[in-house]
Amino acid sequence: MGSFEDLWRSQADIGRSDAGGYRRFAWTPADLECRAWFTDQAGSRGLAVEPDRNGNLWAWWGDPRAGDAVVTGSHLDSVPDGGGYDGPLGVVSAFAAVDELRSRGTVPRRPVAVVCFSDEEGARFGVSCVGSRLATGVLDPDQARALRDLDGTSLAGAMAAAGVDPDRLGPDPRLLDRVGCFVELHVEQGRGLVNLGAPVGLAGRIWPHGRWRFEFTGRADHAGTTRLADRQDAMLPAAAMVLASRALAAELGAHATVGRLVVEPNGTNAIASRVRAWLDARAPEESTVRRLVERVGTEAGWAGSEHGVAVRTTEESWTPVVEFAPDTGPFTGLAEVLGDPPILPTGAGHDAGILAGVLPAAMLFVRNPTGVSHSPAEHAEPADCLAGVRALADTLEYLACR
Amino acid sequence: MGSFEDLWRSQADIGRSDAGGYRRFAWTPADLECRAWFTDQAGSRGLAVEPDRNGNLWAWWGDPRAGDAVVTGSHLDSVPDGGGYDGPLGVVSAFAAVDELRSRGTVPRRPVAVVCFSDEEGARFGVSCVGSRLATGVLDPDQARALRDLDGTSLAGAMAAAGVDPDRLGPDPRLLDRVGCFVELHVEQGRGLVNLGAPVGLAGRIWPHGRWRFEFTGRADHAGTTRLADRQDAMLPAAAMVLASRALAAELGAHATVGRLVVEPNGTNAIASRVRAWLDARAPEESTVRRLVERVGTEAGWAGSEHGVAVRTTEESWTPVVEFAPDTGPFTGLAEVLGDPPILPTGAGHDAGILAGVLPAAMLFVRNPTGVSHSPAEHAEPADCLAGVRALADTLEYLACR
Repeated sequence: MGSFEDLWRSQADIGRSDAGGYRRFAWTPADLECRAWFTDQAGSRGLAVEPDRNGNLWAWWGDPRAGDAVVTGSHLDSVPDGGGYDGPLGVVSAFAAVDELRSRGTVPRRPVAVVCFSDEEGARFGVSCVGSRLATGVLDPDQARALRDLDGTSLAGAMAAAGVDPDRLGPDPRLLDRVGCFVELHVEQGRGLVNLGAPVGLAGRIWPHGRWRFEFTGRADHAGTTRLADRQDAMLPAAAMVLASRALAAELGAHATVGRLVVEPNGTNAIASRVRAWLDARAPEESTVRRLVERVGTEAGWAGSEHGVAVRTTEESWTPVVEFAPDTGPFTGLAEVLGDPPILPTGAGHDAGILAGVLPAAMLFVRNPTGVSHSPAEHAEPADCLAGVRALADTLEYLACR
Repeated sequence: MGSFEDLWRSQADIGRSDAGGYRRFAWTPADLECRAWFTDQAGSRGLAVEPDRNGNLWAWWGDPRAGDAVVTGSHLDSVPDGGGYDGPLGVVSAFAAVDELRSRGTVPRRPVAVVCFSDEEGARFGVSCVGSRLATGVLDPDQARALRDLDGTSLAGAMAAAGVDPDRLGPDPRLLDRVGCFVELHVEQGRGLVNLGAPVGLAGRIWPHGRWRFEFTGRADHAGTTRLADRQDAMLPAAAMVLASRALAAELGAHATVGRLVVEPNGTNAIASRVRAWLDARAPEESTVRRLVERVGTEAGWAGSEHGVAVRTTEESWTPVVEFAPDTGPFTGLAEVLGDPPILPTGAGHDAGILAGVLPAAMLFVRNPTGVSHSPAEHAEPADCLAGVRALADTLEYLACR
C-alpha cells in the first residue's frame, strides 16, 4: 500500500493554512474532505466503511458481526491552527498497521476495525469527543443537537448539511457490543518520552478535566466619554478571572487555561458589554479541579460585583478521571510484548478515555521532540512514527490473534 | 419635506441588527446604503451632491465656488452594535435645518452645505475620522490605503470595490478653501446636559486621545498537557495590561479602555499564541495621556517578561487637544443667539475636532437622557432632537446670512 510517508502526505494538506496550522473543524468542508480521505483509504484496502449513527466512521477488516473486535483509530478534526499529528497520526498509523500486519501475513482471529471519531476537539461546538460521547451515552442527543457554533449554526444543522441525519444521534450499544477492546495511538502532548529517551509509551491515567464558560455581562458605552465610576465594563472582571485561574492553578498543582475569549461589541472605542471566557481546567485529582473552578468562580464574582458586571458560569463538559489499565483484561501481557515501554499519565482528553468508561481501552503515545501540541509546531520524527506503527501492529496482532 | 420623524425613520433601519445595534462599517453594504440615502435626501431637496476625493459626500445649497461656505453635517457609520444617534443625528438634523430655514424663507448670503464624512468611527480599519483626516492632510494617503480590516481587506481595496478611486486620496485644500466654517451637531455622549437641565449645548474642548495596539506574542500549546512553567501564554500579560490600564486611568484622572481583543488561535484547549489588545486613552491634558500609555506599556512589558511573551506597542492614531472657541471668529455672538447654552468639554473625538485644525469649527450637543453612547441603548428624546434642529437652523442662519 505504499510507504507511511506517502500515506501521511495523502492527507497532510487538507485544511492546512498557508501559515502551517490546521483548521479542520467538525462538519466543515475540510472535515468532510478528511472523511472522504478516510473512506478512500479504507476502500483501497478492501475495508468496508460503515458510518455509525453519530457520524463516526468504522472501516472493517473482517465481519463485524463476529464480535469481540479489536478496534484502533483516532480523529481527524483539529483545534484552530492546530498541528498535523494530534488525531491524524492515530488514523494514519492504524491504516499503516493494517498494511504491516498484511505484509507479515497475519490472519486475525477476530475482526479488526479502524475508526475515525467525529468532532473530538470540540473546536466548533464547544464540547469535546462528541462522537464517542454520543456513542457511549455520556452526551445527551438533544443537548448535542442544540450545541451552536459562534455563527449560530446548530450541530444538528451542520450534520444535516453534511448529509448525516441528526435525528439518529444517540447511544449505540449494538455497535459497541461488537467491540472487544479499543487502542488509540496518539502523539504525546508533553515531554515524558523525550525525558525517558523512549520512542513509544503506554497511557496510564487521563487527568479529570472539563470546560467552563464564564459569561460577563456589563453595559456597552462610549470609551471616551463615560466616567470610570459610571462604567460596567465586562472586560475588567474577565481579565481578573484570567489571572485568578493561573494563580490558583499554580497554588493547587493544576492546569488552568483561558485560551478562548469572545468580546462584544469588540470595538476600540466601545466599552465591552459582554465577554465570554472559557476556562479549561485539569488536575490529577477530581477534587482539585472542582476546588479550582469553584475558587475561580468566587474571584470572578467578586470582580464582577466591583464593576457592576453580572457573572454566570456554565459547565460545558466534564470528563472524570480515566485509569487505563494496560496490563489487565485483554491487555494482560501486552506491555511485555511491546518491550515494557514507559507508562505515562496525561492531561489531555481522548476518545479512548471516553470509551474506557464502557469497554477495555488503551493508548499508545509516540514521542514528541518538543512536547508542543495544539500548535503548527507540533511534530513527531519519521523514525518515531514508524516505531509507533510497529508497536500498534504488534498490539493488534497480540489482541486479535490469540 | 415632511417631519423630522419621517426623515429619521427613512434611515433608521439601515444596518440595524435584530438586537437593535447598528453595524454600519465603512464601505460595507450597510454604509453604501447610508450613502445612497444621503444622496437621495440631498437630491429631493435640490442640493447638488459632490463626492470629494476622500469619499466624503457634500450636498450644496448654493454655488460652492462662491466661497466662505457654512458647512454642517456629521457621519453615518457606526461602531459595532452602536447606537442610532452617534453621527446620524447630525446628518438628519442638517437636512432638517435646511428644511427649517427654507420654511422660514431664509435666503443665505453664502453657500450652505451638508456633509457626510466617511469612516468616522474607524470600526473597520482601526483609525477614526479617516475622511476628515485625509481631507485636512493629517493622515498620510499611503498609510490610509494600507490600513487593513481583520479579514485582511485593505482600505484601498474596500474603497475600490465601492467604486471610489483610492489613488485620489489626500489633502483637499481647494475644497477646504471654499469652507468658511463648520458646525457639527452631535448627541451628547455623557450626562452634562442632563445634569444642567438643558436640551442643547456647545462644545468647549475635546480631550486629546489616541489608540494603541498592544501585541502579545507567546506560543500555542496544549492547555491540558503543558506544564505551567513551560507555557508562553499570551493571554496572561494581556489580562494584566487590561487591569493596569484601568488602575492607571483611575490614578491619573484619565479614561482608559480595552474594548477590543483578538485572541489566536482562540480555542478552549489551546494556549493563546497571540493576543492583540487595543487601548483607547484620553485625558484633559496630552501629558496625562502620554504618561498613562507609557506606564501601561511598562506594566505590559513586565507581565510579558514574566511569561516569556513578547510585547509590541503601536500607536494607531493620535488626536491632539482641540479647543473649540464658540465665541470667536465667525462664531462671535452665536452663544447669545442660542440663548447662552452650556459649554461642555468631551472625551469623544469628532470630525469637527479634526477640521478645527484648519478652519473655524464648532459643535452643538443634544441632550442624552442616560449619557449612554456606542450602545443600542443610546437615545435622545424627540423634543430634544427638535430643539437641536432649531438651534442648528438658528446657527446656520446666523453664520450664512450676516
